[in-house]
Amino acid sequence: MPTNRQILLKSRPTGTPSAENFEMVRTPASEPGDGEVLLRTLFLSLDPYMRGRMNAGPSYAAPAEIGKPMVGRTVAEVAVSRHPRFATGDIVLSDNGWQEYAVANGGNLQKLDIEVVKPPSLALGLLGMPGMTAYAGLTEIGQPKQGETVVVSAASGAVGSVVGQLARIRGCRAVGVAGGPEKCRYVVATLGFDACVDHRGDNLRERLAAACPKGVDVYFENVGGATQQAVWPLLNNFARVPVCGMIAAYNDPNPLPGPDLRSVLTKRMTVRGFIVTDLAPKYPNAHAELAAWYHEGKIKYREDVVEGLERAPEAFFGLLQGKNFGKLVVKVA
Amino acid sequence: MPTNRQILLKSRPTGTPSAENFEMVRTPASEPGDGEVLLRTLFLSLDPYMRGRMNAGPSYAAPAEIGKPMVGRTVAEVAVSRHPRFATGDIVLSDNGWQEYAVANGGNLQKLDIEVVKPPSLALGLLGMPGMTAYAGLTEIGQPKQGETVVVSAASGAVGSVVGQLARIRGCRAVGVAGGPEKCRYVVATLGFDACVDHRGDNLRERLAAACPKGVDVYFENVGGATQQAVWPLLNNFARVPVCGMIAAYNDPNPLPGPDLRSVLTKRMTVRGFIVTDLAPKYPNAHAELAAWYHEGKIKYREDVVEGLERAPEAFFGLLQGKNFGKLVVKVA
Repeated sequence: MPTNRQILLKSRPTGTPSAENFEMVRTPASEPGDGEVLLRTLFLSLDPYMRGRMNAGPSYAAPAEIGKPMVGRTVAEVAVSRHPRFATGDIVLSDNGWQEYAVANGGNLQKLDIEVVKPPSLALGLLGMPGMTAYAGLTEIGQPKQGETVVVSAASGAVGSVVGQLARIRGCRAVGVAGGPEKCRYVVATLGFDACVDHRGDNLRERLAAACPKGVDVYFENVGGATQQAVWPLLNNFARVPVCGMIAAYNDPNPLPGPDLRSVLTKRMTVRGFIVTDLAPKYPNAHAELAAWYHEGKIKYREDVVEGLERAPEAFFGLLQGKNFGKLVVKVA
Repeated sequence: MPTNRQILLKSRPTGTPSAENFEMVRTPASEPGDGEVLLRTLFLSLDPYMRGRMNAGPSYAAPAEIGKPMVGRTVAEVAVSRHPRFATGDIVLSDNGWQEYAVANGGNLQKLDIEVVKPPSLALGLLGMPGMTAYAGLTEIGQPKQGETVVVSAASGAVGSVVGQLARIRGCRAVGVAGGPEKCRYVVATLGFDACVDHRGDNLRERLAAACPKGVDVYFENVGGATQQAVWPLLNNFARVPVCGMIAAYNDPNPLPGPDLRSVLTKRMTVRGFIVTDLAPKYPNAHAELAAWYHEGKIKYREDVVEGLERAPEAFFGLLQGKNFGKLVVKVA
């Protein structure tokens, strides 16, 4: 059997995670039994939610286990099949985690139509969890109406970039918040947002207010922190706030406090947290719609591809600081 | 014409309002013109929202005007009618504000069926804005399901007392939070809540946790502040928080910060502010249901009746400190 490089969760971080929390080991890949397949990881998705999985505390999913490969969604190739539904060479969506090989029974595998999901790494982004998160969260909670203003933080990222483009498709003014002039330029020039505000630098609130002359009807929350505090006073009556992520707070033992609920009362706002699996079943056509818009060029999607499993920890730390530019994936094989 | 005693808003308070913000004047009542009535105020409703009306800032309703009678909902008797739809002696729901007499055209008046609304002051409480607030907020946002736990703050008050009794009718465990042992006893013994926790004293969070062994599915928010902070960690996944009032914060220039939205995310909570007029049109039968339950004895309703218009300011200040016990009304005539 081939050698399997694995990155194990070695310890749980307090605050910002570091290289010591992970450990790379080499073991021979396991042999698949009857009804199983051996999968070779092609792409590993790196996502902000993984920071939560490194913690022991209760959350919406079980913590990653110490001494086991760090968890993660992957696109993989069937290297050996002893399962009637899968053939060698099939490309599947799987949960290999941070390792080069994994054995799986067919239960959690989803065969990819590589004519539609092209490149196949899109199954980890626009045509996977992040794209569905944007679609379902914006539609179900954001309820954008023509002419309204939608603000999204982390606007050049895996989810935010889709939120803003969908808002445009729904006839809204789309305003992004992103880190640095290069990302902001991309959000406007390539993704077609109406405006993008750099969260670095002074007077964030004033610059955001200038970009939202009619206030904010939907704030799609990916980050929390200072961006949240700048957006909050701009929210209109009956504003909707889908709470999708709070990346600014994930490493912070003393995060900024949340908004005073008096504003939620006087503006009769709806603030609602969600994860994609709560809402996805209500939108069975989302995947096909996103794929069609992508192939028509109506939705652009940028990937930030890092080469080599060994670089996953470093790339993940960068993600938590906003260093990636587009959906972060690791090309493993 | 009779003498009309009026309490005018004299100035806007910073923080806690005081007697200097009001002024009593005596003027002759105005003569009603054609199509108008002269109303004699019987009962004046005192409600927490009035604190917001004393401010100049934008909110969901226009501020009360300086030099004009303080605003307020009233039950009144038609003293003189020059309107074809109203006869002398009719009892109506009106917006006289803090004064003994007011002239009105028929537009804003609602004739009361005093066989159903008995005593007529109920039109300011259970069978008026506070009862409808409880009904619509709990039903539309709280969405209580059989077997769930509903916590309501200000549980002996105009809205909270109805919320808990409705929760019981819906098959939920109803847990109140109130100030002092007398109110807590009343909430359990008379209103039939499953438990009531005194927000005064130590270990509020622990006592609340003990009263909610299965966590909290609905938190009907009337107060904010320390009660909110104690309830928040007990909220279950998919909890709903109708935000109806924040009385603990109304006079506080530095209110406690709101909850970290990470909890809203990880527990996929819905936090939604509302005012009664947003939701009431969806529940046209609420009034009749509440009246029926009241007359069957399924819902109890306690009024705290203060005698004399001149005592309205003092009673209102007490309301903001939780000194009232039940729905606060002023018997004006």
